[in-house]
Amino acid sequence: MSHDDQPTPPGASQKLGVATSASARIKGLAKQMAAPSSTSPGQPIVMDDSLHPMLAMSTERKQTSFPVRALTYFIDGSEQRTLLREKIMTEIERDPMMRTDDHYDLSLPQVRKRTMEKVRSVVHYVTSESEESSFLRFSLIGIVDQGFVTRVGVHYALFFGAVRGSGTPDQLSYWLGRGAGSISGMFGCLAMTEMGHGSNVAGVETRATYDERSEQFIIHTPCLTATKWWIGGAAHTATHAVVIARLIVKGKDYGPKSFVVPLRDPEDYSLKPGVAIGDLGKKAGRDGIDNGYIQFSQVRIPRSYMLMKHTKVSKDGKVTEAPLAQLTYGALILGRVSMVNDSAAISKRVVTIAIRYAAIRRQFSATPGAPETKLLDYAMHQRRLIPLLVQTYALQFAADEILKMFNSLSKKLSKMDTSDKKGTAEVIESLKEVHVTSSGLKAFGTWACLEAIDKCRQACGGHGYSAYSGFGPCYNDFAVQCTWEGDNSILALQAGRSLVHNYLTVKKGKKVPGEGVAYLNRFEQLSTATANGRDLATEQVIREAWECVAVCIISKLGDRYEFLTADGMTADQAFEATSSYRFEAARIHTKCYLVSRFFTRIADAPADIKPVLTTMALLYGLWTMELDSGLFLEAGYLTGHEVEAVRQEVDRLCKEVRDDAIGLTDAFGYSDFFINSPLGKFDGDVYRAYFDKITRSNPPGQRAEYFESTIKPLLSRDISGDEVIEMEDDE
Amino acid sequence: MSHDDQPTPPGASQKLGVATSASARIKGLAKQMAAPSSTSPGQPIVMDDSLHPMLAMSTERKQTSFPVRALTYFIDGSEQRTLLREKIMTEIERDPMMRTDDHYDLSLPQVRKRTMEKVRSVVHYVTSESEESSFLRFSLIGIVDQGFVTRVGVHYALFFGAVRGSGTPDQLSYWLGRGAGSISGMFGCLAMTEMGHGSNVAGVETRATYDERSEQFIIHTPCLTATKWWIGGAAHTATHAVVIARLIVKGKDYGPKSFVVPLRDPEDYSLKPGVAIGDLGKKAGRDGIDNGYIQFSQVRIPRSYMLMKHTKVSKDGKVTEAPLAQLTYGALILGRVSMVNDSAAISKRVVTIAIRYAAIRRQFSATPGAPETKLLDYAMHQRRLIPLLVQTYALQFAADEILKMFNSLSKKLSKMDTSDKKGTAEVIESLKEVHVTSSGLKAFGTWACLEAIDKCRQACGGHGYSAYSGFGPCYNDFAVQCTWEGDNSILALQAGRSLVHNYLTVKKGKKVPGEGVAYLNRFEQLSTATANGRDLATEQVIREAWECVAVCIISKLGDRYEFLTADGMTADQAFEATSSYRFEAARIHTKCYLVSRFFTRIADAPADIKPVLTTMALLYGLWTMELDSGLFLEAGYLTGHEVEAVRQEVDRLCKEVRDDAIGLTDAFGYSDFFINSPLGKFDGDVYRAYFDKITRSNPPGQRAEYFESTIKPLLSRDISGDEVIEMEDDE
Repeated sequence: MSHDDQPTPPGASQKLGVATSASARIKGLAKQMAAPSSTSPGQPIVMDDSLHPMLAMSTERKQTSFPVRALTYFIDGSEQRTLLREKIMTEIERDPMMRTDDHYDLSLPQVRKRTMEKVRSVVHYVTSESEESSFLRFSLIGIVDQGFVTRVGVHYALFFGAVRGSGTPDQLSYWLGRGAGSISGMFGCLAMTEMGHGSNVAGVETRATYDERSEQFIIHTPCLTATKWWIGGAAHTATHAVVIARLIVKGKDYGPKSFVVPLRDPEDYSLKPGVAIGDLGKKAGRDGIDNGYIQFSQVRIPRSYMLMKHTKVSKDGKVTEAPLAQLTYGALILGRVSMVNDSAAISKRVVTIAIRYAAIRRQFSATPGAPETKLLDYAMHQRRLIPLLVQTYALQFAADEILKMFNSLSKKLSKMDTSDKKGTAEVIESLKEVHVTSSGLKAFGTWACLEAIDKCRQACGGHGYSAYSGFGPCYNDFAVQCTWEGDNSILALQAGRSLVHNYLTVKKGKKVPGEGVAYLNRFEQLSTATANGRDLATEQVIREAWECVAVCIISKLGDRYEFLTADGMTADQAFEATSSYRFEAARIHTKCYLVSRFFTRIADAPADIKPVLTTMALLYGLWTMELDSGLFLEAGYLTGHEVEAVRQEVDRLCKEVRDDAIGLTDAFGYSDFFINSPLGKFDGDVYRAYFDKITRSNPPGQRAEYFESTIKPLLSRDISGDEVIEMEDDE
Repeated sequence: MSHDDQPTPPGASQKLGVATSASARIKGLAKQMAAPSSTSPGQPIVMDDSLHPMLAMSTERKQTSFPVRALTYFIDGSEQRTLLREKIMTEIERDPMMRTDDHYDLSLPQVRKRTMEKVRSVVHYVTSESEESSFLRFSLIGIVDQGFVTRVGVHYALFFGAVRGSGTPDQLSYWLGRGAGSISGMFGCLAMTEMGHGSNVAGVETRATYDERSEQFIIHTPCLTATKWWIGGAAHTATHAVVIARLIVKGKDYGPKSFVVPLRDPEDYSLKPGVAIGDLGKKAGRDGIDNGYIQFSQVRIPRSYMLMKHTKVSKDGKVTEAPLAQLTYGALILGRVSMVNDSAAISKRVVTIAIRYAAIRRQFSATPGAPETKLLDYAMHQRRLIPLLVQTYALQFAADEILKMFNSLSKKLSKMDTSDKKGTAEVIESLKEVHVTSSGLKAFGTWACLEAIDKCRQACGGHGYSAYSGFGPCYNDFAVQCTWEGDNSILALQAGRSLVHNYLTVKKGKKVPGEGVAYLNRFEQLSTATANGRDLATEQVIREAWECVAVCIISKLGDRYEFLTADGMTADQAFEATSSYRFEAARIHTKCYLVSRFFTRIADAPADIKPVLTTMALLYGLWTMELDSGLFLEAGYLTGHEVEAVRQEVDRLCKEVRDDAIGLTDAFGYSDFFINSPLGKFDGDVYRAYFDKITRSNPPGQRAEYFESTIKPLLSRDISGDEVIEMEDDE
């Protein structure tokens, strides 16, 4: 089955206003190859036209076994959703403010300015379209400019999100009236982390001391480590911050609460009295965000600037605390949920680049004298890339699911009546489940994506190291996802803690609710399950295998925890003593979830795409098993021979998926604008695009500006006084 | 046992000319903490002086169980070698041209200029000191500026190395006379890789066609993919290149040979006729190197510019080919050997930063109300960092060994008489062994280091993402090591190929020479070995365990290869069909080598440092076993219970090594100049150093220069026509 009706990516076709079909392009190929290119007149790309990269690419597209467009609808969720995505993508591509062609050459000041221009450009949409569309718009821009999302996100998601989540209705409308909804007259940021306090928010040292006489809070930074640090938007942009500070009333410390603190005059951006702000300068990536530090010296704000949805302080200093402290953390979860989606979105981009490059790059001959072999035809290269491709699908499907869970939770939270104890308890159970699942997925999803970026870079060999390939900048921008908004290791340990509680619940004979951990209810059967000679490449065995190892490790952890607490340790001590098991339990539970979601999601896929999705799901399940083969052997689920069979099956499935690899990346629907890498050019004309990119970004013929000052004096110096270099090869 | 006589790092103490002891520093601490710092007058660092980071650091140093200085001598190889290193380090620190304090803020043009200034600065030493000293000098500068090493290396190691390795004595003295030894009047580069040809050097397309009438070679680039690409030094610096081009004489293609081709006029740097050069611009890292592309259009060079040590072309076009083609590749091996050392050198730096930070950073309390706990006291954090610390030692010991092997090989090569067949065969066997061992170590050593850099970054949480922490730039600069001078995956596959040959030799009843693969001679006993209840934390069991799994995988690979070739496949086809096994075989063989070298190296260590080295060796052996537990179970060497025992032993050993962690990083002897990260400050005063670094690099009080153009118009725009944002939480 061959599909020649592959769509061009949205941007490319929509810009031209015509649907250029692959076959039409191929017909024009010979002509194009003969025609001189702008930057390489008369220069053939390759010596042998039959090995032209564009032909290689079109050959790949022809052999695709499924309708690409149908898969795109499936990934996006519906045809309508695909059309919305393509509409927004086109708007982005057409907007001159959104240009990214010079992205990799911008200096720190340039990239900060450019990013702010992008913010200006999207504000119009944010105030005139649905939140869903804006969310999608931001994440699409984020594919090709990750820093942008944070720059705009510090206002909308962090500052405004905090006002909306922690402010009373009156406070919300007050700040809306001041321009918080439309970024007019103010720009907000969230000042949570401090120099000495990152993950441990409860430990922040900044103080908000209530002064009854003036009915004001005094915001103060008592020492260097209490300096607000990493505050996105603080260095250049923010006029206001939601500051997380310890509420102190009548000498009593109520822990961290949220306060709106004006930082700068919106007219001239002069700092407010007592506010000191500095620029944190160069980072490993995401330089489009102006992270800063803030120190407060006895800064006074009115009482009404404390966000009082949960905890209230009356005029005369009476403190009413939030009945359910857990509920205040709901806002942080959305950040994590988004990062699972980011992991999928960025994986799509880098996997597309590496696979397209592998489809046109030839190196070494399989047989002497024959043309060089495409990288994608090497078993080893398939091993390197195909699992990353299927992992990308796994991440996307899990991201969709966790977003659905989060939205459903949000609905429950907004409708919750705290006087209904049973209903409230159920909502809190849901909150816990979303917390555990999103923590695990955030941690292991961002790690998987970061690893994928670098593996894809390496799969492009030396060319992957060019900044213009996109990989390096992408890695640098993405890397922060592993440590911010919940450091991955800490999130994993927290998830491990919840799994202990879940296991102990089950062990006591109760059932745990929540689909994600439901397999724990069957822990006794699962812990003795084995493959027992069955066909391994089946959904049933793969699901059971993962549930089996997850149960084994969680029960080992839980039993050990129980033993240690029975032996006299506090819960905290026992959790600390079982850290490495907690981490592993969270890791395996999350993998189990990813595998399981893959199968569940594709169960009702259309018939014409189900076969390829099933092959991918099997490969994902078996490849991940291979990576952790030790656990499957240790659990007794697999024998050594079966592990060997898994390995061979992975080889075979990689080869099978390989033939659809280009179709499977096309289905992501990223146009060349969003790929932003000549190595990943849709039409396969990689070398020409790469050469053009290099020469356009670095016009040839320039002598180094430091030639006269540095190079010439070296080469023309008087060396008559120098000794002759020793010429022996040895010491 | 406590050692309070810890040396300060060389730079710090030698600059002051006094040996500041730790105790003296601690005594002054209270005073220092009270005294105002330059950038934070009157501001306490932490609220509770008993938790001051400097005190935490001195406490760590006090508990060190061994004499740090003795370990430094051991790592360096001798006291004399340590003193030489410290002498050179001091010269580097004192040289204003070598400054790195603004390193992380330099733009591409600035970093290129700075790097060239450094080249100017070292040329004096290169022409007046021993090669050993220069090699050490380059690698020391490389700790803190990796790009520099390449910039200077393209001339000395690549260009001059090629002239020396492939030129006749007459040619060598000719180019020495032109300034090749002293970088005067010329600067060389090596033009090997092409846009379309990286790893497959044999496939280069650039042509060197001999023209008998003029007695010249015509160097020509026939198509775009033949463009010389990634040529370090080409964009700005090089006047000459050694070009690897296909020798074509009388229509016959003799494959790639080396030719010296003038590129630019050394006076004014105008390009020679027919030479087109372009700048490759921004890379993922190492921007200090001016990589370029070169295209030749019928460029003529005299016959004598072909380097003719191996292959000769006479005036009338008679070609005499090299008797031993393998010998021409000797030069490439040195690059790989150096990269194993680089992996150790860079690991030392990042591990030092992360461990020092972990020794002073506190986060969360182990018990409620108690002061926050040091990161290094968390079991999970020990798990994250301590294995990377011991891995660093493993890499250094292996790097030393492979350098020794290489030097001994070089001696043999220089003394070799090709008419002595037996002697020559032995040298070629040595060459093969050095090739396999260095390939495996280069591949898995650079991967291990790259991973360590990012793991250390993540272990420093958010602060690791600051460019000033050093991790991001270090990662970016190092990343290229995995793909250049032999792509890691390809080197691993090549090493796997050699292992097949070795195994088949042994299977035929012959012995394989070479210490590294000697265990294969015992493959029959090893393949049935088991731990069998013995104490796992012993050298004997760990060595045997690794040899057992290595033998299992190599024999599985070899048997499969043999079966496939017997079944009718060509050798190439059978190797391709067993790629994933070849890769695994090389990986496990290399790990086995690293483990084995660790024990061998420390066997004769001085008594006062042997205990800590032994603990580290055991931890390294067991930690690596844990990571590959599946293989040990599959080979039947370990049972599931024993794997669990390995895990617990790793936990225990991490805890044990933790108490010496600061001493073990101090022993590397990297001063603050070479660490170049406030997070890794020797004295532990991390927060103050970090704040000072930030404010010095980004002087506070500046409004963004794009405030008027971009921020103000956004905030003060007329929004009367805009719609109000939707406020519902849901879609």
